[in-house]
Amino acid sequence: MTLSRRDAFRLTGAGLLVASLGTGARAMSSPAQTISATESVPPGEPGKDYRPVVTPNGTTLPFRIVDGVKVFHLIAEEVDHEFAPGLNARCWGYNGRVHGPTIEAVEGDIVRIYATNRLPAPTTVHWHGMIVPSGMDGVGGLSQHVIEPGETFVYQFRLIQHGTFMYHSHHDEMTQMALGMMGMIVVHPRKPEGPLPDRDYAMMLSEWKIEPGAKRPDPNEMSDFNVLTFNARCFPGTDPIVAALDERVRIRFGNLSAMDHHPIHLHGFAFDVTETDGGPIPATARFPETSVLVPVGATRTIEFVADNPGDWAMHCHMTHHVMNQMGHGIPNMIGADPQLINAAVRPVVDGFMAMGHDGMGDHGMHIGMGHMDIPENSIPMVGANGPKGYITMGGMFTILKVRKSIQDGEDPGWYKAPEGTEARIATEAELARDGIEA
Amino acid sequence: MTLSRRDAFRLTGAGLLVASLGTGARAMSSPAQTISATESVPPGEPGKDYRPVVTPNGTTLPFRIVDGVKVFHLIAEEVDHEFAPGLNARCWGYNGRVHGPTIEAVEGDIVRIYATNRLPAPTTVHWHGMIVPSGMDGVGGLSQHVIEPGETFVYQFRLIQHGTFMYHSHHDEMTQMALGMMGMIVVHPRKPEGPLPDRDYAMMLSEWKIEPGAKRPDPNEMSDFNVLTFNARCFPGTDPIVAALDERVRIRFGNLSAMDHHPIHLHGFAFDVTETDGGPIPATARFPETSVLVPVGATRTIEFVADNPGDWAMHCHMTHHVMNQMGHGIPNMIGADPQLINAAVRPVVDGFMAMGHDGMGDHGMHIGMGHMDIPENSIPMVGANGPKGYITMGGMFTILKVRKSIQDGEDPGWYKAPEGTEARIATEAELARDGIEA
Amino acid sequence: MTLSRRDAFRLTGAGLLVASLGTGARAMSSPAQTISATESVPPGEPGKDYRPVVTPNGTTLPFRIVDGVKVFHLIAEEVDHEFAPGLNARCWGYNGRVHGPTIEAVEGDIVRIYATNRLPAPTTVHWHGMIVPSGMDGVGGLSQHVIEPGETFVYQFRLIQHGTFMYHSHHDEMTQMALGMMGMIVVHPRKPEGPLPDRDYAMMLSEWKIEPGAKRPDPNEMSDFNVLTFNARCFPGTDPIVAALDERVRIRFGNLSAMDHHPIHLHGFAFDVTETDGGPIPATARFPETSVLVPVGATRTIEFVADNPGDWAMHCHMTHHVMNQMGHGIPNMIGADPQLINAAVRPVVDGFMAMGHDGMGDHGMHIGMGHMDIPENSIPMVGANGPKGYITMGGMFTILKVRKSIQDGEDPGWYKAPEGTEARIATEAELARDGIEA
Repeated sequence: MTLSRRDAFRLTGAGLLVASLGTGARAMSSPAQTISATESVPPGEPGKDYRPVVTPNGTTLPFRIVDGVKVFHLIAEEVDHEFAPGLNARCWGYNGRVHGPTIEAVEGDIVRIYATNRLPAPTTVHWHGMIVPSGMDGVGGLSQHVIEPGETFVYQFRLIQHGTFMYHSHHDEMTQMALGMMGMIVVHPRKPEGPLPDRDYAMMLSEWKIEPGAKRPDPNEMSDFNVLTFNARCFPGTDPIVAALDERVRIRFGNLSAMDHHPIHLHGFAFDVTETDGGPIPATARFPETSVLVPVGATRTIEFVADNPGDWAMHCHMTHHVMNQMGHGIPNMIGADPQLINAAVRPVVDGFMAMGHDGMGDHGMHIGMGHMDIPENSIPMVGANGPKGYITMGGMFTILKVRKSIQDGEDPGWYKAPEGTEARIATEAELARDGIEA
Repeated sequence: MTLSRRDAFRLTGAGLLVASLGTGARAMSSPAQTISATESVPPGEPGKDYRPVVTPNGTTLPFRIVDGVKVFHLIAEEVDHEFAPGLNARCWGYNGRVHGPTIEAVEGDIVRIYATNRLPAPTTVHWHGMIVPSGMDGVGGLSQHVIEPGETFVYQFRLIQHGTFMYHSHHDEMTQMALGMMGMIVVHPRKPEGPLPDRDYAMMLSEWKIEPGAKRPDPNEMSDFNVLTFNARCFPGTDPIVAALDERVRIRFGNLSAMDHHPIHLHGFAFDVTETDGGPIPATARFPETSVLVPVGATRTIEFVADNPGDWAMHCHMTHHVMNQMGHGIPNMIGADPQLINAAVRPVVDGFMAMGHDGMGDHGMHIGMGHMDIPENSIPMVGANGPKGYITMGGMFTILKVRKSIQDGEDPGWYKAPEGTEARIATEAELARDGIEA
Repeated sequence: MTLSRRDAFRLTGAGLLVASLGTGARAMSSPAQTISATESVPPGEPGKDYRPVVTPNGTTLPFRIVDGVKVFHLIAEEVDHEFAPGLNARCWGYNGRVHGPTIEAVEGDIVRIYATNRLPAPTTVHWHGMIVPSGMDGVGGLSQHVIEPGETFVYQFRLIQHGTFMYHSHHDEMTQMALGMMGMIVVHPRKPEGPLPDRDYAMMLSEWKIEPGAKRPDPNEMSDFNVLTFNARCFPGTDPIVAALDERVRIRFGNLSAMDHHPIHLHGFAFDVTETDGGPIPATARFPETSVLVPVGATRTIEFVADNPGDWAMHCHMTHHVMNQMGHGIPNMIGADPQLINAAVRPVVDGFMAMGHDGMGDHGMHIGMGHMDIPENSIPMVGANGPKGYITMGGMFTILKVRKSIQDGEDPGWYKAPEGTEARIATEAELARDGIEA
């Protein structure tokens, strides 16, 4: 502990100090460092120093190298964003995207990040989970002056950790984050330990209130969010993720939802949580789960071997988070007579269709089949056509497709279960043999 | 890693494939397997191969053995269910119960589960946390066609894990789970390790919205649930659980609430969380707690030694989850004059009684004593008569009773604290000795 | 396991039994005991046996020693409490404070705690997480008769654990806890292991509903809390916490909020969670985090080395929990024309000011600058003047100040970032060199 982090700030030619690697005094259990404080390293190269992460429905922020420094440029701006076919809203994001592109680098890299503000309001950028000098921390009014509209700020620091982090506005957070101002950060280890993943995905969890027909998200909503997203998309707008059989899969979840800790459940596998935004979880502290609770303002990385072929649901397990806008504010119809409902409700809700007396699974189907209208710029409560009928899920839902082989990350289409491995109507002979009275 | 799970599917005589045990390639930290992939085992027998789990206020699903396969039959149907004396609702459950009976088996068993749909809506059955072939996973439209009303489907697979899992509808989940369609699954290890529990309980956590006087739960509620249950019962309708002194107690919590992660707090003991729905937690990763946060869509198993005799509260620690229906939507009366309140509120709320100016603990008492009416088919906010007066708790609350000996799991009545071990009014002599000005 | 906890109750001269130390049979992973069951110990002394904990914005309950017993006196009473300058409410607390003073003792101590009830309603005191005899557990009606207004009860037990616990009313909990009846308990180990902290803080998390202008909290609110507090204060009413460079810092969080599990995020550091209310977390089970999710009804202790100088935000990461009252129930103005808004809203909301069309960060500033009125006895949504402009945060937000040296725990003022370590406007030369089009 002779050299501490404060000794590791050194002036660079750019006139901005950078944090070099500390000596591990800070982290008490499992420092997220694989190189020493004083080791000089060249900028990490994709393909050579790391396998690039894939951001489903998203992209990665490009960089250039200037005098050994990785230079990035974030542009905060309004974006017309599609959450799923049929639902668009004017949001706030970065570089023409909602959420912003994933920033990817390697431990030991010196990064210089320009932040241009093209929004009508001041903003800042905070690097959630990253150990940076106090003045680079991005809290408006506390660590820096805000970036006024039209201004470009510059942040610079050395990456003294590896892991999964996030960036987001830290000025008028309630508004700016509710409008979409966030993105993932992946810092690869300089000297990786243990088996490397064959697939590496980054998934930002967030939640929105968009009244059906509204053109903008409502940042004032506190609890009844109606658009729940993986990487700012809701099912059926979410791209499936893929893996070849027996590949090692890593998924990095970040949660910058306003209020909800999302329990993300994966079917078909148990996984280990291997990392938080504080660093790696040591092997002795790991245990298997099938639902990982990702707290607001935290990241959780999971890993598993994809040894079970098929189409596997992956979704938030909160039941109102796997449906879309129209599932909110609906009166209770269960067990009621559709005729009576129509008579009662139509005076209040124009054109109301007596649906829901046996559940809401048919909501999407009715709309798809033209039986029912929904407001302009809105999407049905649930659903998409699947291989075996209508899938009554929406929101924070996607599908992991595991196949014998995968071509270039392409969607392989629907899984065909081998003969005899699919639930089906029982035969008369089976019922008789087993003594079942159906 | 020469043999993986896909090699372990083999055709059985029934025309349905079963998954045999894998080789452990999947689980990276602590595989929930105690027998090898190829070991042939007979169906596990209760009493011999495992100590049956107890589901308080519930029951266990019977099975029969046909040609070495354990055959179960789930019947999805409407059920008139009592949440507590005085509160009934028409729910959806299985086999005449809400929630469904606990399914219990042994690792290595081949199970064949028939699912008959007697509901007015299509449904499916998903085996939460269980590693099954993709076509047996129960996601409507994705892994199987839905089970239409009147149909009986058959599911078959080998149990390649042990642990605590759950079953529930995975079609129109929001509606069907909110109406009660769920149950626990316990798979005992074929070759148990470590000390076996003397008591083994299964507790499903769920939440409901039932307007006072309504006949059915409202599945559209998103956040203001007013009936909070252990095994679909709310206090004072919950059976106490029991243990003899120094017995090892295991409680398996499953949470299929719509939206809330419940922190279940046990008085009088610290416990370890030993298991999730992904498998066992290794000893190195365990630590003591007194409140276990059970996320939505997850199971948590706790264990402790019952070395502290007494009557111990066990409850969700969210304060609105230990009260019943009537505690919601009440105006704030604290500190107000009852006379003024009556004058102000009665024009709006017919027959309103000025209660609550010093809290709500008297709500149940007023009703019990005939001072106040409540709507038909509803229960007071809190309470039951206890050994030392009125217990102002409701909802997700029960009592663990630890005694020197327990007869057949029977409720031993209220605990009698040994002389001098109970809080009581301080005497004048005590106050004087200790210099206390009361 | 020859001696169990029940053998450890022994009569004292006071006529109240005390629990002596058990033999470790209970805790299965990591007993929170450092002395044997039969070891006789004198009352622990501050400064000698432990470094006293600091409760920011709070205080510690005094005690006296009578015949070797530590005697405390809690007085439950109404308290006029200031949450932040400008926001007061009549709450329920202890000893003239909201929340109550921290109770601090040492493992092995025998404590006698008098509880006087000066409230208009009956109450009890529960010792959350502490292993006490059943009759001392404080659950009204179950473990004891309630303490009626005017009565003084006496509780007595031996502290057989060390760790971080809490006390609170366990009668009419929903009301009494919502009004503030809670406090922290710190029991220091008799024989500490590992490095001792240089700074040791206790922080109670809670949440309130106080309508702007109201004189009392509303205990009936279920989800839309609008006053979020650290030790019953909201930013800018929270005192900063401090540490000298490289000191070891411990923060003990307790959460007795009604409904929310708060993810407390610390900037600038990763920390380990070292303890729950069940006891210490063994080294093998620890891992680094930057946001600790503190469940309702639980404590979490974090530790880290303060090796990064600066002013570091520490706050709940739920975005509606870092703002104050006025941030709730506001219509969505993002992207709207202020002129049109005024015309539309003023008929409904008297004197409405068209604010928020580019976010809510200016809410506090408008008020501070006299542009806008707020109701009497309320505070703006966010904010305080910081060193670099307005800090748009409120509620559960405070600042950790790390400096080369700290005088007597005093606030050292704002941090001055070393030249070149603060984000700033990029120069033309920088933009040109790096090819950035701003």
